[in-house]
Amino acid sequence: MVKVLTVEDVIDIVDQIGIHTFIGGLIDQLRLDYSRWQQFKKIPRLATHCAEGVMELMPISDNDYFACKYVNGHPLNPQKNKQTVVAMGLLAETVTGYPLLVSEMTLLTAFRTAANSALAGQYFAKDNASSMALIGTGAQAEFQVLAFAHALQIRRIQYFDIDPYAMKKFQVNLSRFDLELVPCTDARSAVHKADIVTTATAAAKRAIVLHNDWLEPGMFINALGGDCPGKTELDPAILARVKLIAEYREQTTIEGEVQQHIDPKNAIYAELWEVIMDRRPGRVSDDEIILFDGVGFAMEDYSVLKYVYQLSERLGIGREMDLVPTLEHPKNLFGVLN
Amino acid sequence: MVKVLTVEDVIDIVDQIGIHTFIGGLIDQLRLDYSRWQQFKKIPRLATHCAEGVMELMPISDNDYFACKYVNGHPLNPQKNKQTVVAMGLLAETVTGYPLLVSEMTLLTAFRTAANSALAGQYFAKDNASSMALIGTGAQAEFQVLAFAHALQIRRIQYFDIDPYAMKKFQVNLSRFDLELVPCTDARSAVHKADIVTTATAAAKRAIVLHNDWLEPGMFINALGGDCPGKTELDPAILARVKLIAEYREQTTIEGEVQQHIDPKNAIYAELWEVIMDRRPGRVSDDEIILFDGVGFAMEDYSVLKYVYQLSERLGIGREMDLVPTLEHPKNLFGVLN
Repeated sequence: MVKVLTVEDVIDIVDQIGIHTFIGGLIDQLRLDYSRWQQFKKIPRLATHCAEGVMELMPISDNDYFACKYVNGHPLNPQKNKQTVVAMGLLAETVTGYPLLVSEMTLLTAFRTAANSALAGQYFAKDNASSMALIGTGAQAEFQVLAFAHALQIRRIQYFDIDPYAMKKFQVNLSRFDLELVPCTDARSAVHKADIVTTATAAAKRAIVLHNDWLEPGMFINALGGDCPGKTELDPAILARVKLIAEYREQTTIEGEVQQHIDPKNAIYAELWEVIMDRRPGRVSDDEIILFDGVGFAMEDYSVLKYVYQLSERLGIGREMDLVPTLEHPKNLFGVLN
Repeated sequence: MVKVLTVEDVIDIVDQIGIHTFIGGLIDQLRLDYSRWQQFKKIPRLATHCAEGVMELMPISDNDYFACKYVNGHPLNPQKNKQTVVAMGLLAETVTGYPLLVSEMTLLTAFRTAANSALAGQYFAKDNASSMALIGTGAQAEFQVLAFAHALQIRRIQYFDIDPYAMKKFQVNLSRFDLELVPCTDARSAVHKADIVTTATAAAKRAIVLHNDWLEPGMFINALGGDCPGKTELDPAILARVKLIAEYREQTTIEGEVQQHIDPKNAIYAELWEVIMDRRPGRVSDDEIILFDGVGFAMEDYSVLKYVYQLSERLGIGREMDLVPTLEHPKNLFGVLN
């Protein structure tokens, strides 16, 4: 039997333990997994490009689990009333290869991306950071805000999106939380005096949603939208002046903001795990500008799949389905047809 | 919503249309897809090796669908009363990237492997072939027999397995079909005077289950067990004397029997699609020995997923599940949590 977790099941898990506890536990899970980085078998994600977008597989494994996420990116989907990004995940047991879990991962991807950003924020934002600018208030936005609110007690959110609907739904969705929501009329004013700047737009190709001359000393830039070859959202001049952090060098050099740099590999100061494991210092002064070039790596999917799998087992949520045959004898597959 | 097909659902589909019709339709689907080989985006499967076995992803796409199979190979699983190989599959729509189907694929893999072998048999077995030797009567065996019986009217089956249980369950499972089942005391006597020789053992590492001096002119060898680096089951001398057919050169040279050859790439006479599309002749004389070095390729998984998806839609089988969020507005993902 294989457990299946639907969207409703994931919402049920989040509701039962509370969204702040859920995010906090996920940040802890990520930190734990980054702290044993060497135990994972890692490869850059596998992208299949088509006329309308991209379809990706993100596999990773350790001695306990094999995890794989399927995720797409189709920028024109909203015109068909579909989401740009949806995802599904599989978790299998390494020692037998048997699948344990099939799960929705659209919500889980939003949660893990936000938890991962906030985890990075704990190492790279200024100690007294209290405000965040948000450029782009699409599908990812509220998750980012709640994760930073939980992990760094960020309360003031200065936000801008070119789409008035996105601005509005963001405000409505977050109105029940203890936050100071400051709508802005353009990206520049959103960024003004913010301690943290999160960029998360669906800008295709080379866009500039954050200009170099808007930056102020000590900022932590959490850049999420540059996540495909040819898709970036930062002014290239920014790359020359920041301390640049990647999740996984081999993937980020292909997909991240750093692809705009003339020497991507050497432009990366550290991988996130190196700072978490104390191999390299994080922020060393209140003045330096640090850029987290977050493209999303398979280990984050591993962490969230394992996390919700364990929560679902504890809470008794999800449906066991016969997605793998149960046989009288392991060689008698044909027997199930009789 | 995403359709989920369980083992029971797949059995239901096979029962409703009949196993012979199911296999025949699948062979037709495979032939159709091989006949448009150039339309697929192809890569060799992605293998993750662990101490206990291997976990693989087999993705492929065209303008209609993206398909991916997860499949393992854990030779010690039967000691834990688990199958060596289990599999699950995903089918998504290329134009939106949205998942359409999650399906069990342990049974479907057995069906598609057999259908693929029989399709190859239609091009490479002798015209008057009537008998097949089967070395290894494990999980795959009965499926092979039924596919060859359907596609080439093979009736006489000479079979051998080192495991008496495997011999017995094979005979019991096939007793209801119109076949002449001839149990043999060793592999050599099974092969004697057979027109077709199918090898499908779980032999790990380099094994020899078929010796060169057992071969007779005109044989078609359908070799399935050599399907991982370092895992082969044919006498290497066989490779020097046969016309060798692969599914997909880039993958077979890594995984197939041909990996034993000093020059694998040049040892391959043709890819299966080239013969199906009449680019190269198949069998040209009654005497030549032809080897189909079948490792299993992602296109076969694409074909069977599409085939059962369409059948399931027609028959109304399977369960629609909310594995992808349905949103009021495509940017309002967080809204599903309210």
